[in-house]
Amino acid sequence: MQGRSPSDAIKPEVRRLSPYTLKHFEADVKLDQNENPYELPLDLKRQVVDRVLRRPWGRYPEFVPAAVIKTLAKLSGWREDGILVGNGSNELIQATLTVTLGPGRSLAAPQPTFTLYKLMATALEAKVVDVLLNPEGLTFDVDALVQAARSSDVVVVCCPNNPTGTLLDPDALAVVVSNAKGLVLVDEAYYEFSGQTALSLLGNHPNLVVLRTFSKAMAMAGLRFGYLMAHPAIAQEIYKAKLPYNVNIFTLAAAEIVVEKRAVLSDAISKLIEERERVTAELQTRPLVRVFPSKANFVLIRTQKPARELFDALFKQGVLVRDVSAYPLLERCLRVTIGLPEENNRFLEAIDQALETR
Amino acid sequence: MQGRSPSDAIKPEVRRLSPYTLKHFEADVKLDQNENPYELPLDLKRQVVDRVLRRPWGRYPEFVPAAVIKTLAKLSGWREDGILVGNGSNELIQATLTVTLGPGRSLAAPQPTFTLYKLMATALEAKVVDVLLNPEGLTFDVDALVQAARSSDVVVVCCPNNPTGTLLDPDALAVVVSNAKGLVLVDEAYYEFSGQTALSLLGNHPNLVVLRTFSKAMAMAGLRFGYLMAHPAIAQEIYKAKLPYNVNIFTLAAAEIVVEKRAVLSDAISKLIEERERVTAELQTRPLVRVFPSKANFVLIRTQKPARELFDALFKQGVLVRDVSAYPLLERCLRVTIGLPEENNRFLEAIDQALETR
Repeated sequence: MQGRSPSDAIKPEVRRLSPYTLKHFEADVKLDQNENPYELPLDLKRQVVDRVLRRPWGRYPEFVPAAVIKTLAKLSGWREDGILVGNGSNELIQATLTVTLGPGRSLAAPQPTFTLYKLMATALEAKVVDVLLNPEGLTFDVDALVQAARSSDVVVVCCPNNPTGTLLDPDALAVVVSNAKGLVLVDEAYYEFSGQTALSLLGNHPNLVVLRTFSKAMAMAGLRFGYLMAHPAIAQEIYKAKLPYNVNIFTLAAAEIVVEKRAVLSDAISKLIEERERVTAELQTRPLVRVFPSKANFVLIRTQKPARELFDALFKQGVLVRDVSAYPLLERCLRVTIGLPEENNRFLEAIDQALETR
Repeated sequence: MQGRSPSDAIKPEVRRLSPYTLKHFEADVKLDQNENPYELPLDLKRQVVDRVLRRPWGRYPEFVPAAVIKTLAKLSGWREDGILVGNGSNELIQATLTVTLGPGRSLAAPQPTFTLYKLMATALEAKVVDVLLNPEGLTFDVDALVQAARSSDVVVVCCPNNPTGTLLDPDALAVVVSNAKGLVLVDEAYYEFSGQTALSLLGNHPNLVVLRTFSKAMAMAGLRFGYLMAHPAIAQEIYKAKLPYNVNIFTLAAAEIVVEKRAVLSDAISKLIEERERVTAELQTRPLVRVFPSKANFVLIRTQKPARELFDALFKQGVLVRDVSAYPLLERCLRVTIGLPEENNRFLEAIDQALETR
C-alpha cells in the first residue's frame, strides 16, 4: 500500500459521509431517544433471565428462531415464512437496502425523516431522492411521493414519521404502493402509538415491506429487536443480506416472553398516548410554541428561539430533548419524547422558564 | 408494480445468490459449529445477569460502549480509537466490505474458506477472485495471494483458516500486507487456539484490519460478540457502515465480565488444544483417514467414503459433524469440532465403526 493514504481503500461515497452520531448527555429527565419510560416488570425480566441461564451460552442461537417467529405471526396475523427478525429494525433496513440498492439504483425518502435510510443508501452508492414534506404542516406530500415512487427502486415511509410524528393516510399509502416501480418500505417503529398499520395491504401488494421494532412501545431498546413482514418471495431475498445468528439468545427469550405477556405493556402505551395528547394541548396554550400534532411517542415543537439556545436552557434545568434543527425544514425545532407524567411536567415547566412565558 | 414479479425489485446479483443456510440436526455429540463445549461457570453467568437486571431495558445501549472498548484495548494492547465492536464478527466483516466493495471493486479470498465473505461481496455486486489453496496440503498459496492482493480492493485471510485449520505464516502475511493495493482483512476467529496473531503488524500497516470473535474460544456463540482492530482512520470509516446500538446491554455486560475473568477460560482452551492434538494423532493411526494438521478447534478429515455417507453413518451413532465436501478442493471431507474428551472418543469410535477399521 505504498504511498497511499490508508483510507484510499475506502469508497469515496463512504469517505464523504458523516457518520450517524449522538452526543452523550446525562440528564435527570431523558426525553431525547423516544424510549418507553415504563420499564418491563421485574418478574417478567426474571423470567427472561431464568430462561437464559438454562440455555448454553457457548452454543449458537438456532439458525432460524422458529419460536419467536411463530409468536410474531400470531401477534401480527402475518405468515411465518414472510417474517424476518433482526438486531433492531435497523439491521432489517440495512438488509432490505443492501439487496435492492447499488450504483445506478435509487431510494426515495421523505425529508425530514429518520437519517439512517439515506446514510445506508449512500454507503451503497445509490442515488437518494429527497421528497420534502409540506413545509407548513410537515405532512407528507402525497403527489410528490407517488411521483418519486414511479421511478425509484425503493421508497421508504416512516409512519408515523420520525421526527415529525406525521402519519401517511392509509389510502395515500395504497396509492404509493400501487404506483411504485420497486419496493415500498414502511417503517412502523412507532405504530403502537398511532394504531395505524399498512399490514392489511401486504396480502395484495408483494412489493410492500413492513418494519416493526421492540425499541419503542415494547420497552426493549437496550435489547435490540425488530421484525420485518413481507411477501415470502421478498423476505427470502432480504434474508440473504441478514447476518446469520443476528439475534442473540437473550433477546430471543425476551422477545418471546414480552409478546406472550404484552398485556403488561398496554397500560404504559395508553398512558403515553394520553400524555402525548395532554402535552400537545398544554403546549397549544403557549403562544410562543408551535406544536405539530403527533401520532408517535414524541412531539415536535418550534419556537422563536434558536434551537441550540432552547436545548441548552432546557438541559440546564435537567431536561434532555433532541435538537433536530439541522434537518431540512426544521429550523428552530426540537423533538421531545413523551415521558412519565412527572417528566412531562418537568419539561413543560422548563420550557416556560426558558421562554419566560409564565 | 403492475405486471412485474415481486422479486424484480431485488438486484439480479442477489437473486442469483444461494443464502447462507445450515440444516438443523439434533444429536448427542454436537461437533458441527466449532463451539466451545466448556460452558462459562454459573457464578460468572449470574454476575452478568445481575448486572443486566440492574440496568434499564427500555433505554438504548450507550452510543459508544466505552467500558468494553477500554477492556478490549487492555486485553489486546491495541488503541481504543482503533477498536470497533460488533454483533458477532460477522457484522464487522459486513461493515468492512460495505465501505470498500461495490460494482467495479474486488475481493480476493482463498478457497476454500468461510463462505460469508464471498456471499457478502456478491450481494455488494463486487467481483470475487478465488485464490485456491495448495490442493495437496490445503495450505495457503502465498505467491498467488500476493499476486491477487496487488490488484484487489480487499484481501481476506481467515487465519487459522476455516474449514481447513491452516495458518498463514506471519512472514508471508507481512508480504501480503505490504503488497496489497487495498485492505487486508485477517479474520482471527480461532486465534486463541493457534496463539498466532497479526496484531504486531497493525502499527506499521494502516491497511490491515484484524477481526476477533467471542463465539469460539470465549464460549459466547449464543451471545454474539466480535471486535475489530485497525488504524483509527480505517476504523472510523468502517464505523459508518456499522449499525448504531449494534451490541445489546446483555452482550456488553457479558463481554466485559468475561474479559475481566478470562482466566476461567484458559483451562478450557488448553484442554481443547490438547484434545485437538490427541484426536489428530489418533486419526493418523487410521490408514483409511487423512487428517489435516489444524491450529483451530476443529480438524478436517478426508476418507475414501462419500462425505454424505460418512456423515450419515456418524449421525446414526449420535455424532454430528459438518459435511464440507461441497467446498472447492474438499471432496470427501468432513470438518469435526474438538469437543469434550468423551465426545471426541464418541467420534473416534463412531468413525471406526463407520469405516469398519476396528
